[in-house]
Amino acid sequence: MGEMIGKQSIQYEHPPYLLASSSIAGQKEKEGPLGKLFDEIIEDPMAGEDNWEKGESEFMKRAIELAIQKSGLKKENIRYLFAGDLLGQLIATSFGVKDFEIPVFGIYGACSSAGEGISLASMAVAGGFADHAVAASSSHFGSAEKQFRFPLEYGNQRPLSSTWTVTGSGAFIISKRKSEVQISGITTGKIMDYGIKDSMNMGAAMAPAAAQVIYQHLQDFNRKPEDYDRIITGDLGTVGQKILIDLLKENDYDISEQHMDCGIEIYSAEDQDTNAGGSGCACSAVTLSAFILPKIKCGEWKRVLFVPTGALLSTVSFNEGQSVPGIAHGVLLERSI
Amino acid sequence: MGEMIGKQSIQYEHPPYLLASSSIAGQKEKEGPLGKLFDEIIEDPMAGEDNWEKGESEFMKRAIELAIQKSGLKKENIRYLFAGDLLGQLIATSFGVKDFEIPVFGIYGACSSAGEGISLASMAVAGGFADHAVAASSSHFGSAEKQFRFPLEYGNQRPLSSTWTVTGSGAFIISKRKSEVQISGITTGKIMDYGIKDSMNMGAAMAPAAAQVIYQHLQDFNRKPEDYDRIITGDLGTVGQKILIDLLKENDYDISEQHMDCGIEIYSAEDQDTNAGGSGCACSAVTLSAFILPKIKCGEWKRVLFVPTGALLSTVSFNEGQSVPGIAHGVLLERSI
Repeated sequence: MGEMIGKQSIQYEHPPYLLASSSIAGQKEKEGPLGKLFDEIIEDPMAGEDNWEKGESEFMKRAIELAIQKSGLKKENIRYLFAGDLLGQLIATSFGVKDFEIPVFGIYGACSSAGEGISLASMAVAGGFADHAVAASSSHFGSAEKQFRFPLEYGNQRPLSSTWTVTGSGAFIISKRKSEVQISGITTGKIMDYGIKDSMNMGAAMAPAAAQVIYQHLQDFNRKPEDYDRIITGDLGTVGQKILIDLLKENDYDISEQHMDCGIEIYSAEDQDTNAGGSGCACSAVTLSAFILPKIKCGEWKRVLFVPTGALLSTVSFNEGQSVPGIAHGVLLERSI
Repeated sequence: MGEMIGKQSIQYEHPPYLLASSSIAGQKEKEGPLGKLFDEIIEDPMAGEDNWEKGESEFMKRAIELAIQKSGLKKENIRYLFAGDLLGQLIATSFGVKDFEIPVFGIYGACSSAGEGISLASMAVAGGFADHAVAASSSHFGSAEKQFRFPLEYGNQRPLSSTWTVTGSGAFIISKRKSEVQISGITTGKIMDYGIKDSMNMGAAMAPAAAQVIYQHLQDFNRKPEDYDRIITGDLGTVGQKILIDLLKENDYDISEQHMDCGIEIYSAEDQDTNAGGSGCACSAVTLSAFILPKIKCGEWKRVLFVPTGALLSTVSFNEGQSVPGIAHGVLLERSI
């Protein structure tokens, strides 16, 4: 059973655990600062298939397989799959998960999907509706640029505020079975629209949503930034990070000491030509699995607020002159031992 | 707290209730057999906006407003919104719900979204994570044909197996507060892929998924078709209905007496040129609100298995030669008084 606290949060009385996780990434991610931490690298962006979308499905399939394997469970033990990606009608997910034959809830929170999936899976387990559930998300540089901006073959220029979509997938087993990391609570985001209309500046579109979730989380749990070892956003990048810190300072919270952004960590921007940083559903997912969870497991960090961020961008709405609203999903992770 | 039963189902120990609901539909739906039952008709398919997508957002916005109003609650009482539509990146939803400022979980289950949203909202309420939550979904003939097949201006021909996307939106308040209709349980679907590659025959793509959910529901609850007043699928249409009934007969269940399909009910196919029937996320949603729930409330039906069905169609995967997999989400509705 959970306990609703404040305006937007749950604090679980019996927190579910992150029993196991996986991170599958591509060649570009291998070359970045976290490259050696990922479980597996698939160097071929099509993963042996004949297009990027099928390739992305293979990344997700492998991530889920590996997470289940690492947990010691069998796929028959997984009650639900909460999964999503950036593509229209979630095709990377549909074709990536269908062979598992596990009941599926398709989710869409743009690049915040890792947070949305873990949130919903944690509710399912804490509510007694599943012993074990999987949350998975994927993204892919090739399929995302084709979907949202320009096919890679165009060779278009990318402004400094643009981010680089991470090719990869992360999967997480949320479970009743005890592990070193518990999901102590969640803070679920609202859609925030500051009227941003630049599809090459997603950080600015997402920062207000991240700021709202972090602000409300601190209010709901009655805590200060210094009560956290890290407050980690998904893919704001360097441009979005500044906006986030400024917005929270205006509301009397200074998170500059605690803040980390997966999009900034995953690439070496100067060497890798990734401009403002990494992005995509996989950005926060693979960073959580490969970099954040090990820090909590080993006791270096005891409490982390993980806030994947999403820009609700679509070419249809964008070409019709609409703005790009943002959303963020907060997950409170704590060392449980 | 819930009780996991069988392989894919939950039977709630303390079932949440459907406290209120709404149905907003368009001109074509007004002219159909259920026309007089809808709460409101918006005759302008753009709902006063300048394109179909914005129009669809207005349908969803109005549906949620009205459902909250009918429930006697205020928007501040709604803890979560579970919402989705058919369009890439759920733009009808994002722009339709953002002004409510309610924490949002975006969902994608194609035309099964009404079932997915009610399922997740029922878990949230039964688990103690929300007192009241909204599940909403929308679809739109103009925006869907543009997204998936041909813009309406092309005037392309439509084969007899094709369906007509319902323009409208339905919203549901799932609540701890007692009403005449309870959500006694859910049976969550797997993705089923029978290799259908005809985007004009969605009924055939979805029927196997519906059959699997209905079969497993009957197994999990240890019941027979005759224990139900109705077993109601979302939008299989006449072609999908035959396949569904045949598939279940092969597994020793004859549901021909109990089966009803929202897509068959919503239009008068011969008069309205809708071929195999209606479809879209709104098809099952507005039919549930306007036609099914009143039958349960008045006691005519005491137990209904509601199974919205979705075809996971995308132009990208379709043009790359992939099949159209299906999914279905079962919700067990019972008269509670």
